[in-house]
Amino acid sequence: MNTNTIEDLVAQAAAAKSASRILARLSTQVKNQALLNIACALETDHAEVLAANEKDYKAARSDGLDEAMLDRLLLTPERLRGIASNIRDVAALPDPVGETLDMRTLPNGLVAGKRRVPLGVIGSIYESRPDVTVDISALCLKSGNACLLRGGKESLGSNRALTALIHQAISRAGVPVEAVQFVDNPDRSLVEAMLKLKEYIGLLVPRGGEGLIRFVEEHATMPAVTGGIGVCHTYIDRAAKLEQAANIVFNAKVQRPTVCNALDTVLIHMDVAGECLPRIASELCSAGVELHCDHRALSILGPHHGLNAMPATEDDWGREFLSLTAAVKIVDSLDDALDHIETYGSGHSEAIVTEDYSAARRFLDEVDAAAVFVNASTRFTDGNQLGLGAEVGISTQKFHARGPMGLRELTSYKWVITGNGQVRE
Amino acid sequence: MNTNTIEDLVAQAAAAKSASRILARLSTQVKNQALLNIACALETDHAEVLAANEKDYKAARSDGLDEAMLDRLLLTPERLRGIASNIRDVAALPDPVGETLDMRTLPNGLVAGKRRVPLGVIGSIYESRPDVTVDISALCLKSGNACLLRGGKESLGSNRALTALIHQAISRAGVPVEAVQFVDNPDRSLVEAMLKLKEYIGLLVPRGGEGLIRFVEEHATMPAVTGGIGVCHTYIDRAAKLEQAANIVFNAKVQRPTVCNALDTVLIHMDVAGECLPRIASELCSAGVELHCDHRALSILGPHHGLNAMPATEDDWGREFLSLTAAVKIVDSLDDALDHIETYGSGHSEAIVTEDYSAARRFLDEVDAAAVFVNASTRFTDGNQLGLGAEVGISTQKFHARGPMGLRELTSYKWVITGNGQVRE
Repeated sequence: MNTNTIEDLVAQAAAAKSASRILARLSTQVKNQALLNIACALETDHAEVLAANEKDYKAARSDGLDEAMLDRLLLTPERLRGIASNIRDVAALPDPVGETLDMRTLPNGLVAGKRRVPLGVIGSIYESRPDVTVDISALCLKSGNACLLRGGKESLGSNRALTALIHQAISRAGVPVEAVQFVDNPDRSLVEAMLKLKEYIGLLVPRGGEGLIRFVEEHATMPAVTGGIGVCHTYIDRAAKLEQAANIVFNAKVQRPTVCNALDTVLIHMDVAGECLPRIASELCSAGVELHCDHRALSILGPHHGLNAMPATEDDWGREFLSLTAAVKIVDSLDDALDHIETYGSGHSEAIVTEDYSAARRFLDEVDAAAVFVNASTRFTDGNQLGLGAEVGISTQKFHARGPMGLRELTSYKWVITGNGQVRE
Repeated sequence: MNTNTIEDLVAQAAAAKSASRILARLSTQVKNQALLNIACALETDHAEVLAANEKDYKAARSDGLDEAMLDRLLLTPERLRGIASNIRDVAALPDPVGETLDMRTLPNGLVAGKRRVPLGVIGSIYESRPDVTVDISALCLKSGNACLLRGGKESLGSNRALTALIHQAISRAGVPVEAVQFVDNPDRSLVEAMLKLKEYIGLLVPRGGEGLIRFVEEHATMPAVTGGIGVCHTYIDRAAKLEQAANIVFNAKVQRPTVCNALDTVLIHMDVAGECLPRIASELCSAGVELHCDHRALSILGPHHGLNAMPATEDDWGREFLSLTAAVKIVDSLDDALDHIETYGSGHSEAIVTEDYSAARRFLDEVDAAAVFVNASTRFTDGNQLGLGAEVGISTQKFHARGPMGLRELTSYKWVITGNGQVRE
């Protein structure tokens, strides 16, 4: 279905809603077959997808899209194999739909419990990353939800080709093609229109920069999962193993700096800063990291070493860098670190490195974030890494789901209550 | 703290937010002691509450408040004992905070799982029912949440006295009084202001009529639990035990007609309507129920019997009566009943009466509602009846919580991940 007008969009949303009633009752077997068909097609029947992607890529390059975004736009046979492998992982996960929770017999003989059901229609608005089109379609299908997808304009041709591939693949498994709706029109007015469709869309998942998230928060009429903005701290405690701390900080900052769970600020206890900061700074800088340091950190580092270190400004605390930049601050105590994180954190991922049992326990108890870590890299806040298979996004809100959102987080439940004539007294 | 201005309201919300950080880490013992103190005070130290309530009641009566609302406003020593008993039930329930979910060791040695945490500050806007002030305070305290409460204007004096009682009681247990904030100003502009305080209020629970719910849905900037509107059907299948069906329908309609889980429409399979409708109609009418019947039901009942039966209009389907009125429709099949419920139901509580296994199973599978029943009264959709102790409200949305919201439904979780130096490859 082409999205030429707002009426077309509404018709797509309504078709998704109708399809969602069928999806809610599909067997696990049929859903898994649909996923395996998609995986196969991505590996073997991808000529049109790659051709469309090449066109998108060339146009985006000549329009001057930056390298990081070009990289996200690009599909290759190898990348398609990676996406196919993720989809097979999702197929292998247990089906959340129908799972029964807290079932019990009440004193009056009623048997009551909750049964997981899909949410209905998931809407998603995201950047020019065609892999997201496939990931979200797969998670929605497996969790019995229909979806309405609106990807970035640079990936329009790729997404059209991928949607055609998905439709063919799921249709062969007996899944209605209306289950996956793609908004094939880059007009911004359709985004606003989509946010008004609460009659059809049960949950909206925006994936993108802060601008998009704020826009959705302000204009969405349906529940939306907001998140993805990660101002992540790693606190090196007085009792840290310093080599471990250096490895964790390096990994959290450098392994993939453009993502939300990458490190933004290192906090270091003053008692160990003299010993560990120079090493950490030198390792980071040799990987190209620019350091924005408070005055105590700067005075430890001194003017020498050829380090790329400069004074931090107030703006640096609480900033999500999404690049090879890190802020560095020396703190007097665990309490100071906790205060700093409470003030400047975004509630995404926070880590402590310590061998001190009580410090670890206090950090886990007191830090209010989607994920709190002891002696590990914040880069593990990720649906796949935490065993959820994949994720439609990472929530930093407390309502409904927090942290990586996988299959189960795309469900609701209903109370199922069976009796033999019970009435209320 | 008095709420004279919007600034006062913001200060109350901010104080609640600060207090919520302390509440999140209170021991179960301290929280339970606070609840038991409130229960004791309600039973033994209630002179000021009863005096204030008498004043409220007299003023409301002379202002012409209707009998049902006057009844909800009234407090008596006996009713206070009932409220105290509910609070002791809440104290006896397990503490949801700190409960650990899905903890496991991942292949890389990380130990990861979810830990339940409070939401923060719960806001509630409700009618002139002073018992709600105590119920919500108790549920919030036990689940580690602070609350900001705004009750109806007729109950202002009662709520002030109850808040003073609660503050004294929890303070003696070592709980900060800022945990329970009451908006002691009936000005409507404060309701609108409250809906804008998303910086402080994590979840809003409106309790009241459709007007309030819609207003909150439209204006709340924070997540809100919408629901409480129940258009509830009971379907008497061809294979129903007719005596059981009559009892269930009578209970669902008559036991407490003013509440959301009371029956609104009876659907009867045409094969059994001739036998069971006259009996059901006569029982309902002798309890004062007015019946709005489709033409087939009317022709079964005939013009005689002294029944209070009249033709239904299109408006009657999908209407929440909240009174001694019921709509009656004869359907050709289970499919027709399912279609009718899908078209006119509000997703609250739906029941089938049947001895047919497949019909029961289809009803449970296919009806999309917060609670689906086989052979029981819809009146059981209630936190206390389903073993949750009490409820802050009943959600008919699918996001976060569905059905009765008790302690667990007032929590979120955080991922807790402990390692020994893991970094991501």
